Amino acid sequence: MGHSIEVLKQEIISSFGTPSAVIDLDVVERNIARVQEICDRAGVANRPHIKTHKSPVLARMQIDAGAKGICCQKLGEAEVMADAGIEDIIVATNILGAAASGRLAALQARVGLKVCADSTVTLAAYAKAAEDAGRVMDVLVECDTGRKRAGVETTQEALELAKVIRDDPWLDFAGLLYYPPNDGWDKTQGFHDVVVAGLDALGLEAGIVSTGGTPNLVNLGKLTGATEHRAGTCIFNDRMMMAAGAATLEDCAFQVFTSVVSRGGPDRGILDAGSKTLTSDQGGLEGYGLIPEHPDAGIVGFAEEHGFLDLAKCNAKPAVGDVVRVIPNHVCVAVNMVDQLVVVRGNEVVDVIDVAARGRLV
Amino acid sequence: MGHSIEVLKQEIISSFGTPSAVIDLDVVERNIARVQEICDRAGVANRPHIKTHKSPVLARMQIDAGAKGICCQKLGEAEVMADAGIEDIIVATNILGAAASGRLAALQARVGLKVCADSTVTLAAYAKAAEDAGRVMDVLVECDTGRKRAGVETTQEALELAKVIRDDPWLDFAGLLYYPPNDGWDKTQGFHDVVVAGLDALGLEAGIVSTGGTPNLVNLGKLTGATEHRAGTCIFNDRMMMAAGAATLEDCAFQVFTSVVSRGGPDRGILDAGSKTLTSDQGGLEGYGLIPEHPDAGIVGFAEEHGFLDLAKCNAKPAVGDVVRVIPNHVCVAVNMVDQLVVVRGNEVVDVIDVAARGRLV
Repeated sequence: MGHSIEVLKQEIISSFGTPSAVIDLDVVERNIARVQEICDRAGVANRPHIKTHKSPVLARMQIDAGAKGICCQKLGEAEVMADAGIEDIIVATNILGAAASGRLAALQARVGLKVCADSTVTLAAYAKAAEDAGRVMDVLVECDTGRKRAGVETTQEALELAKVIRDDPWLDFAGLLYYPPNDGWDKTQGFHDVVVAGLDALGLEAGIVSTGGTPNLVNLGKLTGATEHRAGTCIFNDRMMMAAGAATLEDCAFQVFTSVVSRGGPDRGILDAGSKTLTSDQGGLEGYGLIPEHPDAGIVGFAEEHGFLDLAKCNAKPAVGDVVRVIPNHVCVAVNMVDQLVVVRGNEVVDVIDVAARGRLV
Repeated sequence: MGHSIEVLKQEIISSFGTPSAVIDLDVVERNIARVQEICDRAGVANRPHIKTHKSPVLARMQIDAGAKGICCQKLGEAEVMADAGIEDIIVATNILGAAASGRLAALQARVGLKVCADSTVTLAAYAKAAEDAGRVMDVLVECDTGRKRAGVETTQEALELAKVIRDDPWLDFAGLLYYPPNDGWDKTQGFHDVVVAGLDALGLEAGIVSTGGTPNLVNLGKLTGATEHRAGTCIFNDRMMMAAGAATLEDCAFQVFTSVVSRGGPDRGILDAGSKTLTSDQGGLEGYGLIPEHPDAGIVGFAEEHGFLDLAKCNAKPAVGDVVRVIPNHVCVAVNMVDQLVVVRGNEVVDVIDVAARGRLV
């Protein structure tokens, strides 16, 4: 039947101390199953973005539940996942500084990556790495249809890059990578249709057409030609996903257990988790996290190791020594601060897993 | 005579890849010497706060230059420093969640800490840890004179805690910990004078009277009775310290070397360093860092692994593949993102040191 949350809190402080990052395995499993079901229903493959959890253990759970492969944002993440035996990997960014260090070639020789590019400079780096590896590299062209991030902004550039890939003996054209704005799927469709026609004229086909984002899960099926989707945050969810309507409180699997270490006056409190634990990433929201025990408490600021509580609106205010949970605004950056996740089920600690790809900056 | 910066950039990308965190040892040594000199001149001991660098190697350099001891913000930081043979340590925060895990007692048995408290709950935890360790613990009372962080806000509370410490067989009253607002030294003096008189009536003396903060280095000497100062950021400095007038560009020892990986249109660029490298901590400034090569480039936003450049005001715009350096807004949280620092001198790589206490959340 599981323990009470109070018993779990005692176990966390006596076995690990606070702050500690904790995930609830029941919620994780439910989230994994739900996203797989959404992808299945939309007829696109599920390729989870592992930037959120950075754990081969969790990536394996996603694959076992039906995911086709994984997506990484750093070469170092891909190295860690390859070490764990995962081989179908897209690295969804232009890899330049890492390519120069020879690590791209080394990994390509081992697993045969799918990489992304939006410039001929990146393509040249990939061709060199593929040649060094002695293994042709699959390349997707990254396209920007409105987010103003990486990616070519015109269909003409996309086709020029596809042609360069086609004509390079060390590169294979593998498809197109999109991150459609949540409300920009129509525009993405228009862009995509032009590119598909152009590719046809080049004798090419986009084997992979990838879309991305957890809030975009509701849009799956809207892009004709899409073959797969990469979403990351949905395995844990957070306050941003709640604000976006993409998750409820019950869907939030990750919490930081933190102690109230000081009460400066009737309306102030201080947590032992600050910007070095939860990060300053507010994700456009007010405050820095949600405390389920005290939903009216505001986390109004951070020092590096302190979270500042505004308790003015709380009827039952936490006391010094109380342990409270914090659901962060942005879980991906919060997970990235810790070396391990305490895994619980039914308020019982069942495991500790490494955030194995944390700190893989390159 | 040293290499050129271009040679260094090539060495960084070929040996480490980008992004990489780099410190310039010449600047570090100059900063260490300058802060020691400021403390010497003011007649207060220098107790560097190691939260900025989290490295026993750098702590040892500070001690060798004249520092009396160190200050830590987490028990885990103190454990790492103690492992490296450093024994004069203040932990400048209420330790609760860690105390419960028994680690406080274990460290106390090894080195004899100086800890801080602003409540009787914390004092009870310290007394238990000291008894478990079989070694009396030195305790400072943390006082808040205007920053609205941790610390008692009244002299009466300070004296009540001092009395509890006096009367506990496992605790020794070691002094007072202040973090005066930069413009609040007069108020701090008033608070301090009342506390000193009250301590005298209790038969107590504040052996340590500690002030803190890099921007407060200019105020040293203003608090009669202060015995030591703890400043952290000044070993590296950052854009915030420049904005505060506490450092110049030449005093900034820490830089992230990052590649321009994409150029979306004439005025946009993308770095391979984002919020998972430089953090979202803006420290109240516009933008997220300073690029010395392109001072007119704005780092206007972050994705997790991407920095977004606004190049509209740049005459010479960086190209895809260029390596640029970023001085972060807040160096303490940026160092905390990396496992190692590449150490250079005269643009030559001379060492790599571990950020050994990174990730010590508890």
